[in-house]
Amino acid sequence: MADRKIRLGIAGLGRAFTLMLPTFTADPRIELVAASDLRDDARKQFENEFGARSYGAIEDLCRDPDVDAVYVATPHQMHAQHVAIAARHGKHVLVEKPMAIALDQCQAMIDAAKKAGVILVIGHSHSFNAPILHTRALIDSGAYGAVRMIHALNYTDYMVRPRRPEEMDTAQGGGVLFSQGAHQIDIVRLLGGGQVRSVRALTGNWDRSRPTEGAYSALLTFDDGAFASCTYSGYAHFDSDEFMGWIGEMGLRKDPSRYGAGRAALQAATNADEEAALKAERNYGGKNYAPSSHAVSPERLHQHFGTIIVSCERADLRPMAGGVMIYDDKEARLDPVPVPKVPRAEVIDEFYDAIVHGKSPLHDGAWSMATLEVCLAILQSAKTRAEVPTKHPIAVRT
Amino acid sequence: MADRKIRLGIAGLGRAFTLMLPTFTADPRIELVAASDLRDDARKQFENEFGARSYGAIEDLCRDPDVDAVYVATPHQMHAQHVAIAARHGKHVLVEKPMAIALDQCQAMIDAAKKAGVILVIGHSHSFNAPILHTRALIDSGAYGAVRMIHALNYTDYMVRPRRPEEMDTAQGGGVLFSQGAHQIDIVRLLGGGQVRSVRALTGNWDRSRPTEGAYSALLTFDDGAFASCTYSGYAHFDSDEFMGWIGEMGLRKDPSRYGAGRAALQAATNADEEAALKAERNYGGKNYAPSSHAVSPERLHQHFGTIIVSCERADLRPMAGGVMIYDDKEARLDPVPVPKVPRAEVIDEFYDAIVHGKSPLHDGAWSMATLEVCLAILQSAKTRAEVPTKHPIAVRT
Repeated sequence: MADRKIRLGIAGLGRAFTLMLPTFTADPRIELVAASDLRDDARKQFENEFGARSYGAIEDLCRDPDVDAVYVATPHQMHAQHVAIAARHGKHVLVEKPMAIALDQCQAMIDAAKKAGVILVIGHSHSFNAPILHTRALIDSGAYGAVRMIHALNYTDYMVRPRRPEEMDTAQGGGVLFSQGAHQIDIVRLLGGGQVRSVRALTGNWDRSRPTEGAYSALLTFDDGAFASCTYSGYAHFDSDEFMGWIGEMGLRKDPSRYGAGRAALQAATNADEEAALKAERNYGGKNYAPSSHAVSPERLHQHFGTIIVSCERADLRPMAGGVMIYDDKEARLDPVPVPKVPRAEVIDEFYDAIVHGKSPLHDGAWSMATLEVCLAILQSAKTRAEVPTKHPIAVRT
Repeated sequence: MADRKIRLGIAGLGRAFTLMLPTFTADPRIELVAASDLRDDARKQFENEFGARSYGAIEDLCRDPDVDAVYVATPHQMHAQHVAIAARHGKHVLVEKPMAIALDQCQAMIDAAKKAGVILVIGHSHSFNAPILHTRALIDSGAYGAVRMIHALNYTDYMVRPRRPEEMDTAQGGGVLFSQGAHQIDIVRLLGGGQVRSVRALTGNWDRSRPTEGAYSALLTFDDGAFASCTYSGYAHFDSDEFMGWIGEMGLRKDPSRYGAGRAALQAATNADEEAALKAERNYGGKNYAPSSHAVSPERLHQHFGTIIVSCERADLRPMAGGVMIYDDKEARLDPVPVPKVPRAEVIDEFYDAIVHGKSPLHDGAWSMATLEVCLAILQSAKTRAEVPTKHPIAVRT
């Protein structure tokens, strides 16, 4: 099907890679040719599994002439530096969300890609999910009128999953704004037209043993007068996937008997080192590593990031795991969206089309920098207790 | 059971009265002795149904020596004037929400009641609902730690129900802030401890033929650092009672085949007069009047005002139509709350206990004035696009 394959090098064999691996192995447009990681065990597993090369340093990965493009899935705070390296070696770059942890880093990444003439796409994030993109298409059809209000809600146990210490330090990109806001805000911007004008928000930092932001509520205003309310809790006991038909983030049915399993698992760790080890063991190359199950389930639906309700003039639109619920004057109906054969194929669609067919990607540097700006504005607004105007609003490319 | 009855006079036989009538007739602590209304038909029906007196003017009702207390259910903008009349005649007063439409009116009502030595309670509102009060009691128990964040969400067709013209004029108390915010904000204040410190909000005014606020999103900050996000849409096509197990506001199971019935009914009216007539006909004394069905259904559950999630330090609490869902570290369970035999008996509990047993009511004038202040702050914040501090924060009496 594919006229050519992208020979992909992986920078960072951690959690994000684990979740993208089913995509990379199943999508015929991708060939895994090399990887870099600091961990010997992870590199060894990669070499064995894919008959591919591996490196300790990302510089060496980027020097590999067989690599067309690099997937940067290193810790958030390293993204800018690693994108610069990849671009300097003429590699196209797919960078995991969040794009970076500061706006000057984003600008440097954009500049580096532009100077090198390489493609820069930021993803995966859940704004790539087909039901989100289909909701955007329904809005663009004009059938339901302008977007007036968006509501986004997600309650998870993000904060009680095993973490490395830096993931609990906001200055190093820790907390939910960088990791989780990057999903929710990107989705809300995509559906609201993109151009957020101002942000007012409160954040919650409620666990002394994990001193970073684990929850937020934010009000966003858009340039056309529309507004959005976004609420996220990573401390939640209530699981808002109840509102998504008990389909979890990865598109799989949730087992209610697993209630509280995350918190219980965390209690097995008595200090930060043990906790970091707990996380590492489950990662690629770790002794408790298991491939992500979302790729193989025959009942897999779309991935999602919680409840999203888009109120248009003549209908409410609600992306779900099976498609988009359209509530109009006459009826409520599910507009089904086919589940891609390869999970997260939407990311490869965008990256591949940009590299091979010259199509401008939706999730490019400028777009994703604007999402980070909103996430940073949420942190700032909560700190200053004031409205924060944005300086780099970017409209969605439709 | 009751040591004595409150002989109640009704001021205003409109929609609010219709919804309270099942309470007044079924609660043994209440005796309906008189009413006032401008409409002959409504007065006649009241006289026939209760063998009671009726008056055209509220002054005459308040002069009636058989009346102990007056239920003021006249249009919002008349509440202050009517409470003053009732108090002047030494009658205790139960005033429908919203308390009034301006803070000076509230203060005048408080002063009038104090000067006359009469009880002033503001209700019904859904913050009287037993699951809300039980959630408050669970918080007060200390078992779950401090309240950190509250989320409130309600999507209804409020704006497409038949209305009188004044109900679509914000200056006269029209729009969702006065009628619906009075429920949601009162609940959120009650669960958050009461003392809202500041408000940032956006409102939606999206229907040119109904030029008032029909939707809002608001961020409230509390004095102790907790915060709340409150979203309401009265334009909704999506019905958020889906999140309440398809139990509607009145505690009854919803029939999904009635989707869109409100909008369809409204289309029968071609102008404002016809629409007002449509509403009047369904009111007490009107030709299409039917008693509210919520009192008689054997399957009746608690009334509610949409999704409320209270995030405490060690649990999320979620008032539902059957009780309170408690999501703690170990399990998610429903803490059942018995449904009162008489719907909205909680209102009579508070009013009666204040009058007969001298117990200070929760929903007194100062409390309810603080709720109105937040609703007005939402309107102001949306207009000025700025944070609005409150001047009259009141703590919940626990």
